[in-house]
Amino acid sequence: KALARSAIELRCQCIGTHSRFIHPKFIQNVNLSPSGPHCKNVEVIATLKDGRELCLEPTAPWVKLIIKAILDKANPKPETVS
Amino acid sequence: KALARSAIELRCQCIGTHSRFIHPKFIQNVNLSPSGPHCKNVEVIATLKDGRELCLEPTAPWVKLIIKAILDKANPKPETVS
Repeated sequence: KALARSAIELRCQCIGTHSRFIHPKFIQNVNLSPSGPHCKNVEVIATLKDGRELCLEPTAPWVKLIIKAILDKANPKPETVS
Repeated sequence: KALARSAIELRCQCIGTHSRFIHPKFIQNVNLSPSGPHCKNVEVIATLKDGRELCLEPTAPWVKLIIKAILDKANPKPETVS
């Protein structure tokens, strides 16, 4: 059900964006793709914990906040990784 | 050479982080994983245009700036997608 995604995609992945807020607790990870020759759009694809993938609107304030929230939870330079 | 990555990973992906600046022009995409039961660390994995995957330090200012730069290049709500 989840898209098989190789490291390098050669086309746009999103045909539209999900506009409603998604609580971060449902988000497994977020993938950011800059625009480039493969796709003129910046793409933000969230993988939810149930395996669904949703394209998010990169300009939406809540999307930026979720990304900031993920980064802000990081602790500086862990020396060891469990 | 690139990791095969399923939608949902059940363990930490990074055993360390790359600390030197990488120019955004070399970055194909950036994946953000919040911490969770699968891994106590926030993980930021950049896929480079040559297919390499690098773990970045989520607390590094340049990493935050690159993520911000990607998002800031987005245009609001494109009506059509090429």
